[in-house]
Amino acid sequence: MELRLAKRMRRTDFQGDFLTMILKVATNPSIISFAGGLPNPASFPVEAVEVAACKVLREQGKIALQYSTPAGYLPLRELLADRCRKNGMKNVTADDILITNGSQQGLDIIAAAFIDEDDPIMVERPSYLAALQVFHLYNPKVHTVELTPTGASVMEVKQIIEREKPKFFYAIPNFQNPTGLTYSEDTRKEIADIVRGTDTFLVEDNPYGELRFHGEKNTSFNTLLGEQCLLLGTFSKIVSPGLRIGWIVCPHKELREQMISYKQRVDMHTNIFGQMVLARYLQENDLDTHIEKIKTLYGHQAQTMLAAMEQHFPEGVTWTRPDGGMFIWATLPHGLAAVELANEAAKAGVAIAAGDPFYETDRNMPTFRLNYTNCDDDTIVKGITILGEIIRKMLKR
Amino acid sequence: MELRLAKRMRRTDFQGDFLTMILKVATNPSIISFAGGLPNPASFPVEAVEVAACKVLREQGKIALQYSTPAGYLPLRELLADRCRKNGMKNVTADDILITNGSQQGLDIIAAAFIDEDDPIMVERPSYLAALQVFHLYNPKVHTVELTPTGASVMEVKQIIEREKPKFFYAIPNFQNPTGLTYSEDTRKEIADIVRGTDTFLVEDNPYGELRFHGEKNTSFNTLLGEQCLLLGTFSKIVSPGLRIGWIVCPHKELREQMISYKQRVDMHTNIFGQMVLARYLQENDLDTHIEKIKTLYGHQAQTMLAAMEQHFPEGVTWTRPDGGMFIWATLPHGLAAVELANEAAKAGVAIAAGDPFYETDRNMPTFRLNYTNCDDDTIVKGITILGEIIRKMLKR
Repeated sequence: MELRLAKRMRRTDFQGDFLTMILKVATNPSIISFAGGLPNPASFPVEAVEVAACKVLREQGKIALQYSTPAGYLPLRELLADRCRKNGMKNVTADDILITNGSQQGLDIIAAAFIDEDDPIMVERPSYLAALQVFHLYNPKVHTVELTPTGASVMEVKQIIEREKPKFFYAIPNFQNPTGLTYSEDTRKEIADIVRGTDTFLVEDNPYGELRFHGEKNTSFNTLLGEQCLLLGTFSKIVSPGLRIGWIVCPHKELREQMISYKQRVDMHTNIFGQMVLARYLQENDLDTHIEKIKTLYGHQAQTMLAAMEQHFPEGVTWTRPDGGMFIWATLPHGLAAVELANEAAKAGVAIAAGDPFYETDRNMPTFRLNYTNCDDDTIVKGITILGEIIRKMLKR
Repeated sequence: MELRLAKRMRRTDFQGDFLTMILKVATNPSIISFAGGLPNPASFPVEAVEVAACKVLREQGKIALQYSTPAGYLPLRELLADRCRKNGMKNVTADDILITNGSQQGLDIIAAAFIDEDDPIMVERPSYLAALQVFHLYNPKVHTVELTPTGASVMEVKQIIEREKPKFFYAIPNFQNPTGLTYSEDTRKEIADIVRGTDTFLVEDNPYGELRFHGEKNTSFNTLLGEQCLLLGTFSKIVSPGLRIGWIVCPHKELREQMISYKQRVDMHTNIFGQMVLARYLQENDLDTHIEKIKTLYGHQAQTMLAAMEQHFPEGVTWTRPDGGMFIWATLPHGLAAVELANEAAKAGVAIAAGDPFYETDRNMPTFRLNYTNCDDDTIVKGITILGEIIRKMLKR
């Protein structure tokens, strides 16, 4: 028989099976992996989650195992709204929040809500690979803006918004994936001024914002743009990715209702047991204390990797120095291609993420992403040493 | 600002907010609800799930809270494959199975895999409302075949497959939602003979197949059609819907790989904690013994409702007598519209599902769906008595 797939399936070879590779490498213990974006399992509050899970089942088991409503578990949304307000987003209420299967589903819901074939959208250059992949399911025209050390190029944002009127600008303003870069307060305000009053939404993806180990918290576009901002959050990097619980803060009522309706159509609702366990966990534990531990851990790991790079990488290689999050973004000298480094490194037992899949169109880029959250100090130093040796060899050729 | 929604969002008013209404009514304790499709919470193995959840977190907590792979947790897929083989589907292996967020996500994945705008698909008349809703996101041409007491009209299936070459035929052969009807063995074989060798897939949705309280198990289209069948299953009706765990058995390798890739793009993977809890639950408990209890409960409730209908419904009303599942499908006499009955009944504190939203195009139908799984005997009798009175009044006008 002939397999008559829909067109969206035939074009989803965008960036190949890069994510699958990362997840596979991540589970191979003989490989040193800087390629993934996995949180350190040492950061999972396993015992507290166990206590919460047992209490939920013992006290509210029949609710936790029954169908629920598509917007998500109200006490969890209330806890999230409290946290948003505590973090400076003064107007957020539980009504603004839609619970999703991790923020990846949030990205799908937003893409589905906005993108008809050939519709313009705007993303950073480079941007988060899995976001590009899900957007490509809907076949948009993807416009890119350069990401500078202080955030997206304000000039390019202005030009593209005026010329292309993108349906949304997808941005990761805090400790961006893949670069680790963070928008300055000035850039945020300038971009908000450009976006305000246009028909373009600002989609702020904020998985890492709570993981700042240096400096001051920045202002969310939710505060700057109100209902013109869609803010994506997740428990994946601060409690557990395995529960698959993220959220969208969407103050725009009509849009939010449409997204809830879409959520219902595609999977009814997010697993209520997990939502109740998280709500219970948040009620009975101090999340901030827990996050402090993660920040201390990741801050130390980042420092270890940066110091090792300083020591072992040859002159000419440059890299970002993140104030938080999970990634360092490095650039090879003399036009070397990071894809070649990634291939050589894999043979030597070290996995890195070459930059190419994070770009909409650029290829043979000199950039690559290093994740420091999932290895101990010795492994970090060992892996960086191996990478340094390979880069030296590449430079000699 | 102008809200520039994608077209798919603007056409999703298909069948209004019927599901939302059902879920709301279901949580209003002052209303007698026969409208929903919720399992009886008395059937949830709360304590055994608690034991499983605690063991998973205690023994494998760091795996249960970490990212996982898009196809789903291998031990759970192996347990499901074992169960398929035990149920007569001899060739099913873990590799054939993709875990989804309930079978609703399975329906979305299948629709996404096949449907380009205006592509032909085929469904039963009437069919499952939430399936019609998710299919409509992709804007197919929906062809319908009459559902008779022995299954889909074989003649219409043949005509539509020959004339329209639908990408798939979506069927619920066991205790169908909404009608409670079951395909005979002959019908299954005749339909399989028609489908075999064409480019049409048979999508068998089987949420209720394990809940047979009379008669013998039927043959799955998986057995009859092999890789031309996509079989959807779920734990929602036999363990818990709140965990949102379903699966697709798809022996067609290329199609399955595409669906796994799509699953990864839209939400990475199904929550692994829930998958591991279910696997543990299945390893340490006898699911068949548990299902026997549900069948005894639902068989009794069905009997109570059927007896009450016999006693309280006026002559001229007809209904199906299901051998399993969760629903009875009734038809009013003399061209009365069930929508009117539903409205009058709601005023009197009884919720039913009028037939209209289960039809692709037919409206003002005399049919309505009654769910018997979520009320005790007295409530069933009380609700049916009230419905009987209202129908009598409608007949007098």
